[in-house]
Amino acid sequence: MTKSPWTEHPTRTLRWRPGDRLDAVDPRATPGYHGGKRAGKRLLAEHGAELSDLQERLFAHGRTGGVRNVLLVLQGMDTSGKGGIVRHVVGMVDPQGVRCRGFGRPTPEEQARGYLWRIRNALPDAGLLGVFDRSHYEQVLVVRVDALEPPATWQAHYDEINDFEAEIADAGTAIVKVVLAISPEEQLERLVSRLDRPDKHWKYDPSDLRAREQWDEYQAAYQDMLDRTSTDVAPWYVVPADRKWFSRLAVGELLRHELRGLDLGWPAADFDVQRQRRLLTGR
Amino acid sequence: MTKSPWTEHPTRTLRWRPGDRLDAVDPRATPGYHGGKRAGKRLLAEHGAELSDLQERLFAHGRTGGVRNVLLVLQGMDTSGKGGIVRHVVGMVDPQGVRCRGFGRPTPEEQARGYLWRIRNALPDAGLLGVFDRSHYEQVLVVRVDALEPPATWQAHYDEINDFEAEIADAGTAIVKVVLAISPEEQLERLVSRLDRPDKHWKYDPSDLRAREQWDEYQAAYQDMLDRTSTDVAPWYVVPADRKWFSRLAVGELLRHELRGLDLGWPAADFDVQRQRRLLTGR
Repeated sequence: MTKSPWTEHPTRTLRWRPGDRLDAVDPRATPGYHGGKRAGKRLLAEHGAELSDLQERLFAHGRTGGVRNVLLVLQGMDTSGKGGIVRHVVGMVDPQGVRCRGFGRPTPEEQARGYLWRIRNALPDAGLLGVFDRSHYEQVLVVRVDALEPPATWQAHYDEINDFEAEIADAGTAIVKVVLAISPEEQLERLVSRLDRPDKHWKYDPSDLRAREQWDEYQAAYQDMLDRTSTDVAPWYVVPADRKWFSRLAVGELLRHELRGLDLGWPAADFDVQRQRRLLTGR
Repeated sequence: MTKSPWTEHPTRTLRWRPGDRLDAVDPRATPGYHGGKRAGKRLLAEHGAELSDLQERLFAHGRTGGVRNVLLVLQGMDTSGKGGIVRHVVGMVDPQGVRCRGFGRPTPEEQARGYLWRIRNALPDAGLLGVFDRSHYEQVLVVRVDALEPPATWQAHYDEINDFEAEIADAGTAIVKVVLAISPEEQLERLVSRLDRPDKHWKYDPSDLRAREQWDEYQAAYQDMLDRTSTDVAPWYVVPADRKWFSRLAVGELLRHELRGLDLGWPAADFDVQRQRRLLTGR
């Protein structure tokens, strides 16, 4: 048993609490963690096996009548590393048990049905780990910053979202909500490096610059979102994301903790094991 | 550059050809491959990086207006290793670009809408790698063997399926269809080992024994399926599956070959890179 490099677990250090200020979060920090980058990467890989085992239990549970599932909601400014979390953390478990969904600008059909329609449609079935790359929270982020709805409309979404999440939590969904907090300086580096690499040009969208110019408005929108929608059933975690290895390690830990919390054993056989053995082997 | 352990590539050795007999396939064989198990596992891992790169190109292509996608169809008797292919081969690429779907017994709603409805619904979007664990082919396998439809009905499905696949191939889907060929002896071992391990009981279904008792009927149904639905746009590959490492290596190769065949470069920037750099950096 190696000594844990965590002095305090991310479920505590990163959890949003009333009175917290987003502008007080240092995106380069590694709260509660005193190992380095190499140890962090190794730790994530080590925990991958347990994450994979826990996810398989969840899947098995879903296949035998269980209703639990897990939803990981990822929010953050462009280049904050949402895709990297999917690839490097979620990528450690069996893809059979994973449903990833990215939410871009809604289509006219989606628009017409209300913002929660496509969200509800994309919820993971029982036994699955669902991952939202952006989510219903865009409705109080880009929609607010770009004034796509009048204030009274988007302001009503906070309560609607809380009600929605309480409802799905009640139905069996464990919700893990993560904001990846990146600094504008780090974002600049990542955007420039996308421009430097032709194999990354497809990830670059000139309109991303607009959101970058609205940085302060977005920070204000995130602050209000965190204040208004971090609930007991679906708390927010703010994960410093200037160091990719730390954000991945931290989200891996949050997921592992959530899956462990479901306390799922392997489903018991609903058949007579000895009898089946006799039927199979003739002995 | 290491010398290839393939004397002949699986796209040639495993491809179903008119006149082929399923009962002539040796499930323990490793056609065209002269490396051992360890080398095979290493090779799969090595090719994982390329598979991952190719899949990302496909994804990038889909995000920039491209219509191509890939559909891997997995068929095979119980315990033939379909799930292992998903975990160990598909699991090597970014889950963001993957849609896995398993097809069990249809629900009454699905039943009412015709067998291709749920299949069409589950087709991967542009840029994605879709994986079907069982598929529309159950309609000429279990449906035939268990006489769930009169012969004239299920016999009509061969042509319907060919038309359906020609249609989606035309629309941009590269289809890779795989039958995992396992021997009854190996299946027995795998079923018994599921009974031996409480963490595998959830995978065991007493009704699997029924399909095992119908082995010859299933082989006949597979033979006809292969004869009737292996087309130029959507050929079948029969992969010997008694050695899991070989079937995984072979399916990895088939996927790699298919993705390479799409010949996708990185999408070109649709913006002025220098201008964006100036806007970003002020220089």
